[in-house]
Amino acid sequence: MLIRDYHEVPAEEIAGLPGVTIRWAISTPEGAPNFAMRIFEVQPGCASPLHSHDWEHEIFILDGSGVATDGQIETPVAAGTTLFVPPNERHQLRNTGSEVLRFLCMIPTVPEALPPSHR
Amino acid sequence: MLIRDYHEVPAEEIAGLPGVTIRWAISTPEGAPNFAMRIFEVQPGCASPLHSHDWEHEIFILDGSGVATDGQIETPVAAGTTLFVPPNERHQLRNTGSEVLRFLCMIPTVPEALPPSHR
Repeated sequence: MLIRDYHEVPAEEIAGLPGVTIRWAISTPEGAPNFAMRIFEVQPGCASPLHSHDWEHEIFILDGSGVATDGQIETPVAAGTTLFVPPNERHQLRNTGSEVLRFLCMIPTVPEALPPSHR
Repeated sequence: MLIRDYHEVPAEEIAGLPGVTIRWAISTPEGAPNFAMRIFEVQPGCASPLHSHDWEHEIFILDGSGVATDGQIETPVAAGTTLFVPPNERHQLRNTGSEVLRFLCMIPTVPEALPPSHR
């Protein structure tokens, strides 16, 4: 059993995505056979990319507030909001508040969803 | 995209497990193809079962405090703790604090891990 505070995992910057960091809390390097847990932190005024891919997301908002959008409809999110983004649906999370927007985002451990070091 | 506060999902009691509830936040009924997100709430003095099974858990502690144990070693957990429980490892979460111990627990959507209505 691997037990650690998520702060023990480095927050990595993401190329081309200012104000957003990712922590790979549990993934293939830890032995995860099926899915990975990441923690994102999005600074006020910043956002994850508006994009789609052929794997799903399961998201839980930990702190902060913002909107989720598919590029057309915007839905408010805040601590306690859960999001299921099916494969191939466009999605983006934007921090519209004044605090950090922090959320868990789980993905399947399929190679195309993982950084090279996790494949 | 399914977006909802986790409180919108009913907290179900678990037979034989007093003081513990589960919310199936995202699972096969919502279309999850690979893994499910559940939210557990454990009352003070109560615990999840000490058991093992052939699928993994990925856990994130949201609120409260307690210990995780394999039946021998006890490790403190609190908000922000992540746990990876590999398949077939014994595990239990006990609420040793005075507030509700609330955590996310993700599992793969293999039939043996799911209630009959989710298979």
